[in-house]
Amino acid sequence: MQNFISFNDVKDYTQLLNTALEIKANPFGQQDLGKNKTIGLLFFNPSLRTRLSSVKAAYNLGANCWVLNAGADSWTLEMADGTVMNGDTQEHIKEAIGVMSAYCDILGVRTFPKLEERDEDYNELMFNKVRELSSVPVVSLESATLHPLQSFADLITVAEYSGYKPHQNFDKKIKVVMTWAPHPRRLPQAVPNSFAQWFSKVDWVDLTIVQPKGNELNPDFTEGAKIEFDQEKAFEGADIVYAKNWSSYKNYGQTLTPEVDWQVTLDKMKLTNNGKFMHCLPVRRNVVVSDDVLDSEHSIVIPEATNRIYSTQTVFHEILKNL
Amino acid sequence: MQNFISFNDVKDYTQLLNTALEIKANPFGQQDLGKNKTIGLLFFNPSLRTRLSSVKAAYNLGANCWVLNAGADSWTLEMADGTVMNGDTQEHIKEAIGVMSAYCDILGVRTFPKLEERDEDYNELMFNKVRELSSVPVVSLESATLHPLQSFADLITVAEYSGYKPHQNFDKKIKVVMTWAPHPRRLPQAVPNSFAQWFSKVDWVDLTIVQPKGNELNPDFTEGAKIEFDQEKAFEGADIVYAKNWSSYKNYGQTLTPEVDWQVTLDKMKLTNNGKFMHCLPVRRNVVVSDDVLDSEHSIVIPEATNRIYSTQTVFHEILKNL
Amino acid sequence: MQNFISFNDVKDYTQLLNTALEIKANPFGQQDLGKNKTIGLLFFNPSLRTRLSSVKAAYNLGANCWVLNAGADSWTLEMADGTVMNGDTQEHIKEAIGVMSAYCDILGVRTFPKLEERDEDYNELMFNKVRELSSVPVVSLESATLHPLQSFADLITVAEYSGYKPHQNFDKKIKVVMTWAPHPRRLPQAVPNSFAQWFSKVDWVDLTIVQPKGNELNPDFTEGAKIEFDQEKAFEGADIVYAKNWSSYKNYGQTLTPEVDWQVTLDKMKLTNNGKFMHCLPVRRNVVVSDDVLDSEHSIVIPEATNRIYSTQTVFHEILKNL
Repeated sequence: MQNFISFNDVKDYTQLLNTALEIKANPFGQQDLGKNKTIGLLFFNPSLRTRLSSVKAAYNLGANCWVLNAGADSWTLEMADGTVMNGDTQEHIKEAIGVMSAYCDILGVRTFPKLEERDEDYNELMFNKVRELSSVPVVSLESATLHPLQSFADLITVAEYSGYKPHQNFDKKIKVVMTWAPHPRRLPQAVPNSFAQWFSKVDWVDLTIVQPKGNELNPDFTEGAKIEFDQEKAFEGADIVYAKNWSSYKNYGQTLTPEVDWQVTLDKMKLTNNGKFMHCLPVRRNVVVSDDVLDSEHSIVIPEATNRIYSTQTVFHEILKNL
Repeated sequence: MQNFISFNDVKDYTQLLNTALEIKANPFGQQDLGKNKTIGLLFFNPSLRTRLSSVKAAYNLGANCWVLNAGADSWTLEMADGTVMNGDTQEHIKEAIGVMSAYCDILGVRTFPKLEERDEDYNELMFNKVRELSSVPVVSLESATLHPLQSFADLITVAEYSGYKPHQNFDKKIKVVMTWAPHPRRLPQAVPNSFAQWFSKVDWVDLTIVQPKGNELNPDFTEGAKIEFDQEKAFEGADIVYAKNWSSYKNYGQTLTPEVDWQVTLDKMKLTNNGKFMHCLPVRRNVVVSDDVLDSEHSIVIPEATNRIYSTQTVFHEILKNL
Repeated sequence: MQNFISFNDVKDYTQLLNTALEIKANPFGQQDLGKNKTIGLLFFNPSLRTRLSSVKAAYNLGANCWVLNAGADSWTLEMADGTVMNGDTQEHIKEAIGVMSAYCDILGVRTFPKLEERDEDYNELMFNKVRELSSVPVVSLESATLHPLQSFADLITVAEYSGYKPHQNFDKKIKVVMTWAPHPRRLPQAVPNSFAQWFSKVDWVDLTIVQPKGNELNPDFTEGAKIEFDQEKAFEGADIVYAKNWSSYKNYGQTLTPEVDWQVTLDKMKLTNNGKFMHCLPVRRNVVVSDDVLDSEHSIVIPEATNRIYSTQTVFHEILKNL
């Protein structure tokens, strides 16, 4: 693996998943790969889960790491070419990424969308510049429109809770339902885009996306998934319910008027095939999902977050193998 | 040791002290225990000394660690059960602690009191939730009402400066005097509560607490100590003077009108048995204690702060032994 | 080496340079020295490059490290002796440095000038106190008036791009030109002072400093360098052009009215001996230097920044050798 920015960087998802399961079973067994290697983690936007799981992944591999919160240090980057930098921006991204990548062997980067101009976000301007300017492999810790380390952790989690075994076929596909859910703020589309991009390709998964009319995700990512607009119908027989809010793709970055009845409740979970409940966290309790789901046996949100370590460790592992 | 939240988690303080002295004499001798272990340090309130000494303690043990400043990252946690989280709080403590504890082998946590409702602080709501929700052992890096790593470092320091030797008896008890001292701000009671809780149990120590009338500490922690109200009388013959300000327990969280004459001065130190001066730091010079004490041979505040490494390393060591 | 605060702490710059080149060729070969050693990095002012390169240097040596942003944590230090600390300052520098140095084996410290009272900055009050109070060796990560780790990295870079070989003489001295350049903000004099202090001593370098009349650096540091006021004349035949803005030493801390024509351009670089362009970064593009220089073969700013790792690693190495 050269970089890890989207599902397209994965040559064989089955092999990657199997490697992750092996690494999880023996997390300290690959420390020769990480010896004297430094993982740089550069956050242009805040992070807790991604930061800590990436640090843990580096440590598990015997690598060291540094973390830089570019945002918190008020370090203002110039993105545009040709600017006369006599204003507020202090450093051009050309130097910033050139230098940061000189101080590490893998550069992980997080950026967020502005949710203003759709094309600007979907062109992934920042991330494409980072990839072009970095002298070392780049790993997305979430970009404007994708969050592949989350999706990979989700794949590991669905595999574990579906009885997946390498080199065995399922009798019947696993029904995974990603449902839109309410939220008080305007949120990025990165997590659901990425989830759709991954799970629509998994041959043992049957992916349904259920969303309010008018709030459809970008069709580029949902191709191959079944699209529904009736939440209760979609939940019928589901093995996995994956809840997430996202702002509108069509009316870009806007939120629907609160659709409170899209909250995931225990009554709705009863429609499923004793399904598991997943969410990438943080989650607004009793807005996105009710307490009685999160506090029940249905919920696997903590094991899901734990798998963030192993998705990241596997990606670092695959990149370090080639260095 | 399972958790370390108060003196009550210590089965045998003599054994713990002896282990600390051995570890201090050979600080890198226990690295098998720390190998591939991660210490997570979660600060809901700022810290310098505790953070750095805990990091050093982890390194000495061959463990790695991460530090998260929950406060600085403006990560607002919901503490109450059953809330509809459509306001400012972004994550419930249930998920936060569940996830954080998945990313480490020991979770150290610092919280401060609000100093508003006494019962709320003294019920240690936050800390009890952390302990209940964490999937790994929890170490207090100071809670609303206790600071046991400080008290344990203080015990190591008093032992060293009293000529303590394992398995030998003292001819005469060591006279330790904890004195209230002035301060311009309203401060927690965690350090003096904890000091009193520990030192009132040490069989070779004679503990006196001297405090202005009306500013008595919570009697739950001072049981067994001699209570005085006359500072000069209390200092007579003292081997150790431990100064600390605390806000009122009775008029909860309020400060006395400045009692400037409670400052520890060289003249007062002359009443002692050539006593040593201790303070947990940071200390307000010429408010809590005069320059001529801090800059004299009486002061052992730097060795005391240094022992924060070894109290913490010993606690991590005792917990890691059982993992 | 005991401390590293200025060029005066270097006994033999040739030997130090040769050690740096050896360490760069074999960066993980000295890990016995760093084992169980902790490098403390204390920033009273923001840093990105210095922080990350110092962390990488510590890791390369097999040492661990901690980083403390004293500024960001709003930790207000009292510098003056004898103060009654009943105001905003929370800890005296005596305790702060005493304690911090107890938690590490080498203490790196960054401070900035106030650019108000020249004597105050040039007396290096803060740094001298740090050196006096620290119980372990002190390394400057930039002080009010000097930045020796930058200058040492610059020396490594100039050596590499001049074909320097240990124990061989140059046929002809390398012409190094440090030029003042425009900038929208008032900047410290630490980088150019330090560059002048180092390069005026290097026997295979011919140092020219070119600066607008009235903006001369402190002559204490520029002794031995050729001083010019005509930028184009100075550039003739230069092997290295080193650009940097600095505020006035004479009208202390003030900036000149913008001297836009001092920007380094490709036309000016054509006057040089196919010279290399250096800058310590961050750099304001099209203010200090034009895009067509930075994006050309002339620019070696990224290799220069990369050498920050090796200058720092060499200094840590030389200090650790003596511990």
